[in-house]
Amino acid sequence: MRVGEQHYRSIWFDADEEVVKVIDQRWLPHAFRIEALRTLEDFATAIRDMWVRGAPLIGATAAWGLASEAARDASDAHLEQAADMLLATRPTAVNLRWAVERMLAALRDVPQQQRPEAARREAQAICDADVEMNAAIGEHGLKLIRELAATRPAGEPVRILTHCNAGWLATVDWGTATAPIYKAHDAGLDVMVWVDETRPRNQGAHLTAWELAGHGVEHRLIVDNAGGHLMQQGMVDMVIVGTDRTTACGDVANKIGTYLKALAAHDNGVPFYVALPSPTIDWTLCDGRDIPIEERDADEVRKVWGRLEDGKVVQAQICPDATPAANPAFDVTPARLVTGLITERGVCPATREGLRTLFADMQEVQGNG
Amino acid sequence: MRVGEQHYRSIWFDADEEVVKVIDQRWLPHAFRIEALRTLEDFATAIRDMWVRGAPLIGATAAWGLASEAARDASDAHLEQAADMLLATRPTAVNLRWAVERMLAALRDVPQQQRPEAARREAQAICDADVEMNAAIGEHGLKLIRELAATRPAGEPVRILTHCNAGWLATVDWGTATAPIYKAHDAGLDVMVWVDETRPRNQGAHLTAWELAGHGVEHRLIVDNAGGHLMQQGMVDMVIVGTDRTTACGDVANKIGTYLKALAAHDNGVPFYVALPSPTIDWTLCDGRDIPIEERDADEVRKVWGRLEDGKVVQAQICPDATPAANPAFDVTPARLVTGLITERGVCPATREGLRTLFADMQEVQGNG
Repeated sequence: MRVGEQHYRSIWFDADEEVVKVIDQRWLPHAFRIEALRTLEDFATAIRDMWVRGAPLIGATAAWGLASEAARDASDAHLEQAADMLLATRPTAVNLRWAVERMLAALRDVPQQQRPEAARREAQAICDADVEMNAAIGEHGLKLIRELAATRPAGEPVRILTHCNAGWLATVDWGTATAPIYKAHDAGLDVMVWVDETRPRNQGAHLTAWELAGHGVEHRLIVDNAGGHLMQQGMVDMVIVGTDRTTACGDVANKIGTYLKALAAHDNGVPFYVALPSPTIDWTLCDGRDIPIEERDADEVRKVWGRLEDGKVVQAQICPDATPAANPAFDVTPARLVTGLITERGVCPATREGLRTLFADMQEVQGNG
Repeated sequence: MRVGEQHYRSIWFDADEEVVKVIDQRWLPHAFRIEALRTLEDFATAIRDMWVRGAPLIGATAAWGLASEAARDASDAHLEQAADMLLATRPTAVNLRWAVERMLAALRDVPQQQRPEAARREAQAICDADVEMNAAIGEHGLKLIRELAATRPAGEPVRILTHCNAGWLATVDWGTATAPIYKAHDAGLDVMVWVDETRPRNQGAHLTAWELAGHGVEHRLIVDNAGGHLMQQGMVDMVIVGTDRTTACGDVANKIGTYLKALAAHDNGVPFYVALPSPTIDWTLCDGRDIPIEERDADEVRKVWGRLEDGKVVQAQICPDATPAANPAFDVTPARLVTGLITERGVCPATREGLRTLFADMQEVQGNG
């Protein structure tokens, strides 16, 4: 999407420099920094330390990491080793494993000297497919927003709450939760987005607010505590969030706090949608409680990144020095609280049957779900 | 409670200096600053700008504000004017009105020259009564914690989640939600407190964590998003929160985000208690939706207070410069989600009947509830 006057993807292969580039998202919204990733350690660091984040972008980055390694040493042993290192970076996002396995499968029967080129093609194909899937999610979600727009008083926007950043910065382009919003905006519908700041890392305040502003979408930042009250007051028409992993039965792992918003939506009759490309579905799991939940560094809770008036970007500690903290990074929203899943093939109920209807081919191939 | 080796209340009359003193809580946990309040504007500023906060302490501060003014000009006209100014500082806390009206009622039939002394006595009585009420809340809540402790494996603490600061800093002493916790700790029970950081103002991280550390109570700081997940994981045995206003039918206004925790507690079978002294009950209202909800400055959302490594306390902006924000300060938890109200007279269901049983005398006198 647009950054100023230029269109960017969140990851791309710079053919002139023969190198993969990403936006180092840790500096947003305060600085727009592009980094080249060269070594395997660069790719692993970019994922682990969250220069890039969001399930689809994590997958795309891992794919490019393997492509980059294949150019150095395309032997089975080296690629397997590189795959293991990349898989160890983040435990929750299923797209990471999906992308790595797709890369290895694509290279397995290719002669070693052709692997570098094949790997580059496959990584690019993963990225292009992500953009296409998200655009399709956008079209299907647009229909839902259009229906809600018809129920709103003239001149009043459809008010959509989102949590964390499932925007174009979390994918290669378009985003998942934001794709319907960008499509609606581009179609001339009046939308207003409630942006959860999304502690501890504030991806809503840092990334979603920045993205939406770049594209000219009306929005208002709120603390994570506010959404329930806004729903009680009839100020939210729908919720759309992304997901890091959704089970074959429709349980949804997403950024910590998503479950609380789903409870509030359910309690107030607000439709709660999850936008996801099919690689985010884990066909091997049904019960969301089986999804591993990453426990991250306590300092993410104890400290907050922000910008001082003089422009300096700092980390400020919000608690006493000795305060211990706990930092689970994701929670699981049970399928019963989800109104529907917005996928690249259409919208379905968050049930095994719903997903089966849309993805009969995939679950037969990929899992035992 | 204790600050280092010394015992403090959150507000007191310094007889030597003939002046009211408070802790300027805006600097906690980074600095412990005591301020003298002299003029009416001092008192109004202390309440409006949240040097003091918490419904009981707001009431106590307003009472001392009137006592201070009575020493200057004890005429009916002046006291009424001062009362109006104090009442305008914060709209949600019912204790503010309760304390101001109690002061005016106590002075009404007193000859003008005796009013300064009578006002001082009354303000002191309001403070002492608050301490007594909170200690009684602590004893009643202690019984609930003791029951839960009996169900925990040997050596395992009772894990209590709290939101915002309903600690001794929010009252004159003991706190409301924390009173049972301090009583349990003092009685030798093993307790561990999950402390919601409580954005936007981070009263949990700034105040509750500081308080609990001062008293030696085990605790862990979490983001506001985490509580639902912890409850799903069976890691929370009970929730205790305070309230800024509870209706005669048991609907509970409290810091924004409380409603979300109540939903999660209900969904996971975790007992959800609200601790409150009776002045927090608004006998004139039944439906919590009739409680006015204060909308505060958007910069509270856009910025975060914290301490840099060099010790400097700063406000850091977390979003782009142009990002608009909304900042509702409270929400209302419907009585159906509340397991019980812990009052100075005992624990009752969050219903009109429950409150009637404990407070038949008050509702007859004070309201139409």
